[in-house]
Amino acid sequence: MAEFEHKLTTIVGPAGIVTDENDRARYLTERRGRWYGEASLIVRPKCTAEVSQIVKLCSKYRRPIVPQGGNTGLVGGQIPTDQEIIVSLERMRTIRTLDPEGRTITVDAGCVLATVQTAAENEGLLFPLSLASEGTAQIGGLLATNAGGTAVLRYGTMRNLVLGLEVVTPDGDVWNGLSRLHKDNTGYHLQDLFIGAEGTLGIITAAVCKLVAKPGATIVAFVSVADPRAAIALLNLAQESSGGSVSSFEIMSENALDMVLKHGTPDKSPLSNRHDWYVLVEMTGNDQQSLQSVAEAVFASALQDGLILDAAIAQNERQGKEFWALREEISEAQRHEGVSLKHDICVPVASIPIFLTEATKAVTAEVEGIRAVPFGHIGDGNIHYNLSQPKDMSAEAFEAKREPVAAIVHEIAHGMGGSFSAEHGVGVAKKSEFLKFKDPTAHFMMKKIKQALDPHGIMNPGKIFD
Amino acid sequence: MAEFEHKLTTIVGPAGIVTDENDRARYLTERRGRWYGEASLIVRPKCTAEVSQIVKLCSKYRRPIVPQGGNTGLVGGQIPTDQEIIVSLERMRTIRTLDPEGRTITVDAGCVLATVQTAAENEGLLFPLSLASEGTAQIGGLLATNAGGTAVLRYGTMRNLVLGLEVVTPDGDVWNGLSRLHKDNTGYHLQDLFIGAEGTLGIITAAVCKLVAKPGATIVAFVSVADPRAAIALLNLAQESSGGSVSSFEIMSENALDMVLKHGTPDKSPLSNRHDWYVLVEMTGNDQQSLQSVAEAVFASALQDGLILDAAIAQNERQGKEFWALREEISEAQRHEGVSLKHDICVPVASIPIFLTEATKAVTAEVEGIRAVPFGHIGDGNIHYNLSQPKDMSAEAFEAKREPVAAIVHEIAHGMGGSFSAEHGVGVAKKSEFLKFKDPTAHFMMKKIKQALDPHGIMNPGKIFD
Repeated sequence: MAEFEHKLTTIVGPAGIVTDENDRARYLTERRGRWYGEASLIVRPKCTAEVSQIVKLCSKYRRPIVPQGGNTGLVGGQIPTDQEIIVSLERMRTIRTLDPEGRTITVDAGCVLATVQTAAENEGLLFPLSLASEGTAQIGGLLATNAGGTAVLRYGTMRNLVLGLEVVTPDGDVWNGLSRLHKDNTGYHLQDLFIGAEGTLGIITAAVCKLVAKPGATIVAFVSVADPRAAIALLNLAQESSGGSVSSFEIMSENALDMVLKHGTPDKSPLSNRHDWYVLVEMTGNDQQSLQSVAEAVFASALQDGLILDAAIAQNERQGKEFWALREEISEAQRHEGVSLKHDICVPVASIPIFLTEATKAVTAEVEGIRAVPFGHIGDGNIHYNLSQPKDMSAEAFEAKREPVAAIVHEIAHGMGGSFSAEHGVGVAKKSEFLKFKDPTAHFMMKKIKQALDPHGIMNPGKIFD
Repeated sequence: MAEFEHKLTTIVGPAGIVTDENDRARYLTERRGRWYGEASLIVRPKCTAEVSQIVKLCSKYRRPIVPQGGNTGLVGGQIPTDQEIIVSLERMRTIRTLDPEGRTITVDAGCVLATVQTAAENEGLLFPLSLASEGTAQIGGLLATNAGGTAVLRYGTMRNLVLGLEVVTPDGDVWNGLSRLHKDNTGYHLQDLFIGAEGTLGIITAAVCKLVAKPGATIVAFVSVADPRAAIALLNLAQESSGGSVSSFEIMSENALDMVLKHGTPDKSPLSNRHDWYVLVEMTGNDQQSLQSVAEAVFASALQDGLILDAAIAQNERQGKEFWALREEISEAQRHEGVSLKHDICVPVASIPIFLTEATKAVTAEVEGIRAVPFGHIGDGNIHYNLSQPKDMSAEAFEAKREPVAAIVHEIAHGMGGSFSAEHGVGVAKKSEFLKFKDPTAHFMMKKIKQALDPHGIMNPGKIFD
């Protein structure tokens, strides 16, 4: 073991190993404190060649590895479980190339998302992935978990925003798949195997990300809808009327709005009356005036058809940001209302209304007084089905309901052809759901692939699979 | 063997086996006559359960299979090489469900693309994949080869147009991955492994395809551009000015236009003067008038900047179709000019101009008088780099140049980080290029995956890999 450690130190140098106990804590603890694990070593390589050497050494000594990005994952995939070696990509944060003409940016996996967004913006372009942790989350981790966020409706998840990858395989070899090609049908599409694999098949060390033209016009509106079914009808109407210009379409329940207004920065709703359901709509296009007319026509028609009850269109960028705060501050506001049980489910879009009705009925039967705070990406079929503790129940008693409630919610989603993890992944948090719900043939194939590419099981063991 | 054949006949019934020699020819010969192979049997299962039973039987008897769709593939992947059993999906052509609200259509793999397009259209929706063979090509084959076509710029390839798959694995198990979910991060993204695998990992039996809102407005324009670099600048300008409304952007050389006008249905160019390069631009949006103004502004600005030399905007749908004919008839027109050497290359978009210059210089040095007829999806970086026989050379002499010329063209594309097969696949046609150009680590991983999922090597042997 001393020999192994000596060799590892030789590869990364003293600056590449985290030894100070206080420093180490940051890598060992998930940021909400839900997962904690001990690592035998924490290394911070500064280039792909070092990552390759580290993995070769670990492969030889059969020492398991946990790759780690910005440590913002929500299912514990980035936290060690059994004295693994953490390989943090945080020192690999170079923007390798930016090609404005070809609309690509090639970055080290340790680049923070906000850095990539800013680099694109400086060229008048857009890297469209956008999510709450964008100031901390790194490209490698976002790829390993196939992150989504609020612009998926228009631009897709990370999977759709990447042209090529560089990956260090479990053997320590470097796969240079840093393609800048939009089309390449030459064998299996390996990059999509690594995207979403949560570090169990290798370490992503760099990526070629797609950039898009920055829209010249944006409309942000906050509307009250009759019910979730009306929200879907409104989305389809808006897409048809605008030639597919809807970039975000986020539903939120009255409970969610209520909590934000009580605990967050916004102090009033943009609408004069309160209702059961709201949608934040963002549309983007080229011409502000024409987009405004389209939006107004959509809302007028939706009002007439009873799909919506009221609508407010932001008059300027500042107001648009205020509307967005109503959506973005839900999670934080919910923390002030006690324990939350959170579920990141996905069902076919058309099944969202019935899912919401059935899930709320079922969890209320399990826990009287439970407060449903659903919100999220209804246009993707992805609802963050969050539940707050009943006002008259203790935190401990509600905590005890975490597993049975999750089982109820996931069972209902699964029954509708849905998923127990739309955008967060499996990690350690959802391993039992994976075992329970995953199609056995799919599970079998995944294990075969894992064994084929990582025969010694050194890449992020104990994650996804048992 | 007799036992095997008897069991197979029991599974599919007499109607499920093609015995007549004349009937058999259709399955054994690639439609241009470039590949021909003998099959020991040709079976036509009528449902997934039959496919599963067939594969189980073949697995047990170690009898290799060639899955076949509409037999429109261009690299020979669908043709047997050594007495395999052809499993034709043509009898599996049911549209299983169409969900207009959720914007999905679930179809058997044997459904013809045009059937899917029409079904979508009947609901006022669009299935955006569009290519020359759409009246014959089947969904399963389009998935196995990750087909592209003329609307990739806006909607992506087949990979981007599918939410879920049903696959019969090499063991004969049925993987029900017919998800209608837009997000599902629960383990490896298996569907993207089967898409583009050319039938070497299993048989795709059904798919959930995405539908999109049908654009309310379309502009088709035919413009002459200063050169390919100007074409790219025009594309970027049009995307910026229109908020990303360009749905097709197809370049063609003067040689290509010339051949179409000589041999095809169009008899004159929409532009009054002849130039070296043209682009067919299609933009889609919601409002015809506003789209028209955007297009006019783009072309006016491009004219002023010297990017384009002239532009014609189609005045109606009929004229739009006439403009499209100029692009669509190139391949057919080229047949009248003797032997063609075709290359389906992709390079980073910004490298297209230098690729065209270098490739034409190099092939001219190899074959004096060779006529370059490049055209295609410049916005994707994908050029159909076709070459016509010199006027004073025999077909035989030019045929003899097929391999050296391909080597030259592919070497130049590869040197620019490009691909030797942008949208057609590897099949048997490009196996030597696969071996020569594919990153060895990628190749190694692909073989590992193939061995893991198809240990007896019964799925489409001799394709992609050696």
